[in-house]
Amino acid sequence: MASGSIVTLLTDFGDRDVYVGVMKGAIAAVNSQLQVIDLTHQIPPQNLLAARFALLNAYPYFPSQTVHVVVVDPGVGSSRRGVAIELSKGYVICPDNGICSGILELDRVISAVELTNPQYWRVSDPSHTFHGRDIFAPVGAHLANGVKIQELGQAIDSASLTKLDLPTLRQTPEQITGCIQYIDHFGNLITNIPGSLVLGKTWQVVIQNITIHKGKTYSDVNLGENIAIVGSHGWIEIAVNGANAQAKLQLTWQDIVQVKISF
Amino acid sequence: MASGSIVTLLTDFGDRDVYVGVMKGAIAAVNSQLQVIDLTHQIPPQNLLAARFALLNAYPYFPSQTVHVVVVDPGVGSSRRGVAIELSKGYVICPDNGICSGILELDRVISAVELTNPQYWRVSDPSHTFHGRDIFAPVGAHLANGVKIQELGQAIDSASLTKLDLPTLRQTPEQITGCIQYIDHFGNLITNIPGSLVLGKTWQVVIQNITIHKGKTYSDVNLGENIAIVGSHGWIEIAVNGANAQAKLQLTWQDIVQVKISF
Amino acid sequence: MASGSIVTLLTDFGDRDVYVGVMKGAIAAVNSQLQVIDLTHQIPPQNLLAARFALLNAYPYFPSQTVHVVVVDPGVGSSRRGVAIELSKGYVICPDNGICSGILELDRVISAVELTNPQYWRVSDPSHTFHGRDIFAPVGAHLANGVKIQELGQAIDSASLTKLDLPTLRQTPEQITGCIQYIDHFGNLITNIPGSLVLGKTWQVVIQNITIHKGKTYSDVNLGENIAIVGSHGWIEIAVNGANAQAKLQLTWQDIVQVKISF
Repeated sequence: MASGSIVTLLTDFGDRDVYVGVMKGAIAAVNSQLQVIDLTHQIPPQNLLAARFALLNAYPYFPSQTVHVVVVDPGVGSSRRGVAIELSKGYVICPDNGICSGILELDRVISAVELTNPQYWRVSDPSHTFHGRDIFAPVGAHLANGVKIQELGQAIDSASLTKLDLPTLRQTPEQITGCIQYIDHFGNLITNIPGSLVLGKTWQVVIQNITIHKGKTYSDVNLGENIAIVGSHGWIEIAVNGANAQAKLQLTWQDIVQVKISF
Repeated sequence: MASGSIVTLLTDFGDRDVYVGVMKGAIAAVNSQLQVIDLTHQIPPQNLLAARFALLNAYPYFPSQTVHVVVVDPGVGSSRRGVAIELSKGYVICPDNGICSGILELDRVISAVELTNPQYWRVSDPSHTFHGRDIFAPVGAHLANGVKIQELGQAIDSASLTKLDLPTLRQTPEQITGCIQYIDHFGNLITNIPGSLVLGKTWQVVIQNITIHKGKTYSDVNLGENIAIVGSHGWIEIAVNGANAQAKLQLTWQDIVQVKISF
Repeated sequence: MASGSIVTLLTDFGDRDVYVGVMKGAIAAVNSQLQVIDLTHQIPPQNLLAARFALLNAYPYFPSQTVHVVVVDPGVGSSRRGVAIELSKGYVICPDNGICSGILELDRVISAVELTNPQYWRVSDPSHTFHGRDIFAPVGAHLANGVKIQELGQAIDSASLTKLDLPTLRQTPEQITGCIQYIDHFGNLITNIPGSLVLGKTWQVVIQNITIHKGKTYSDVNLGENIAIVGSHGWIEIAVNGANAQAKLQLTWQDIVQVKISF
C-alpha cells in the first residue's frame, strides 16, 4: 500500500462541525498522500442500522485494499472495544458495535484484532469522546500506509464480533416477507429482499394493504405513481416516480413488506 | 493526462446516502491517483435548470483538461443517451438531457460521442437506476486517465445535443428584460442578464413594481436593504445586505426581471 | 512544500452552490497535486465567532506546514484587508476580521503580510464579492506550493491583526465564570472554560439555576440525563446522553456558565 492507497470515512458527525476535517488532519499527519474518500457523514446520530446499510452498499465498489474507517459510536468512552477486521475485499476499522454485520454476511473474514496497541494512535491517552480522531483515523492511515493488521493489537475470534439483527427473511414459493431496511435521500423505501429471489418471475409488493406493481425503472409509470423495482443496490425497493415514497405512503424503517409471486 | 488529472462530480444525490462515495470508489477502481473534486451534490432532485447553472458557473475556473461528470438524470433507465463532449476548455460526461446547454453557449464543441462502448463501463450490464456509478464515473475516470474520447463510443453531431431554453433576453437602449435563472445558498436572486450589458451605465432593477438600486457590493447599503449588483458569476443579481432576498422579496425561479438604463 | 502539501478550506458557503468547488478549481489551476481538505463550509452565514471556534479546534491536528484558507467575509468588497499569517504550526490566509483570534492566543506569530501582490491572485481585478476564488484560494495554493509569505504582500505588525472578544473568563478558588462559546451538530453546549482548570477536582456546572454534575463520558448517565464533561476539544461542555442539550435546556451562544469547585 502507501501512496494512492484509499481510506474511506463513514460517520454520523454531519458537516457543520470540524470533526471530519480533524480526522482528515490526523490521517494527513500519518501520510498526506493517502487518498481519503467520504462515504457519508450524515448517518442519523447513533443509528447503527443506517451505518450498517451504508457500509454494506459502498463496500463492494472499492478496490480490495481499501481501508474503511467507520465511526458511529454511541458507546464511545464505555468498555466497547475498537477493532480492525481484514476481509477478502477490504479492511474495516470501527467500534465493535455491529456496524460491520452487513458486510460480515457478504464477505469472508481473514483476521481480526482488538485495537490495543497505542503506538498507532494519535496519542497514547485518547479523548474519552472522540476515538475517531485519536484512534480510528490514525490506525486506518497506518494500515493504508503498510502497517500489518497484526501490529494493531491482539488477535480476536471473528465469531465474537458484535452483530445487529434485522427481522429474518421468510420465504415460501408464493411469498417472501421482509422489511424496509433503509430509506434513501429521495424517500425511496429499500427492503432487505434481494432482487435475485424474483429474477425472471412475475411479482408484486404488498405493504399495509397497498399493492404495488413491479417495473424496471422509475419512469415505467406516470409521475406520482407507485412502483416496485430492483434498485441499484440489488434489493427490491418501493418508489414513486418523481416524488417521495416515504412521504406519500407514510411508511418507515423496519415496516414489514411482502412480495407475492404469481405463476 | 493521468496522475493529477481532475474529475469533477456534479449530482443531485445529496450527502445522506453513499451514492457519491460509491461513484468515487468506481473512479478509484480505474485510477486511485486521479484528483476528484465535488462541484455540488445538492442540485434540487432532477432540477435540470439548476444543474445547467451550476456547471456553467464552475466550468470556466478549472484547468482545460478537466473532466466534468454530471449526473442529474430524471430519464435514467429510459432511452435517453449518455454522451461525452470535448469542448475547447474541458470535457463533460453526462446524460443528454440539456444540462450542458449553458456551457455549449459559452464554449466550442470539438467532438461528441454517445457512450456506446461498454469496455469503459464498470460492468457491461449496468444498473437501470444508477448510471452514475456504472457508466458516467468510470468513463470519466478512463478519459482523465488518457483514453481518447473516440474510444468511448459512436461519434454524434453536436447540433443534436439536447438544449434547455430559458426566456430569451430582450434588449432596447432603455431596458433589458430577463429572468431569475438561479437562487443561491444565501437567497441571492441571480438573473440571466450579464453585467457586461450595463458596464459604465446608470441603471436600476425593477421587479414586480419594486425598484432596486445598483451598488458595487452588499455592504454599500445598510443591513436589511435591497441592492442590485453584478455578482461574482458576472450576472446582475438582487441581494439584501445581511439577509435572504428570496425570503424578503418573495420571488422565485424564472420570475421576470427588468433593468432600466438612464442617460 | 509542493506535492502532498495540504490546503484546508473553512467557509460559510454551504454545499448547495458551486462556490467551494470553484475555489478548488482555482487551487488546482495552481497545482492539481495539492491535497485539499474541507474543515467545514457550514459556518452559519457571516458568523465570525463560529469560524473562530472552528479554526481554533481544527488547527492543532494538522501538520505544521498546512495552509488554512478561511473565507467568512461579511466585509468583502469593503476596505477590510486580506492577510497571510505564518504561525509556528501553520499558515492562515483570510480576511482580517478576527476569525484568527482563537489561534492567535494559542500559537505564536512568526510573520504577517497584507495580500497586496496581485501576482499570486487568480486575476488582477478580483470580483467585488468573491475574494475566496480570486484571492484567498490561489494565494493559499501558491503558499502551499512553495512561494514565500514575504512575496504575497507588504509586511504588517501582528499586533494590528483584528481580534474578536468573548466575555473574559473570571476565576476564584471556588468558582469559574465563562460562557457558551459554541454549539455543535449534536446540540452539545461547549463552554470557553478549559478542562485543565478543573483537573483532579470535584466540580459541577450551574447554568440558569440548573445544576449539572460532571462525568467522564456521555454514557455515564442514563439516556435523557444532563452531564458536564471535558469534551474532545478540551473544554467543559454540557451534553444530554442520547439527546440534544441545546433543545432540552433552551440555552444559546454566549449564555453565562458557572463551574463550582468543591473541596
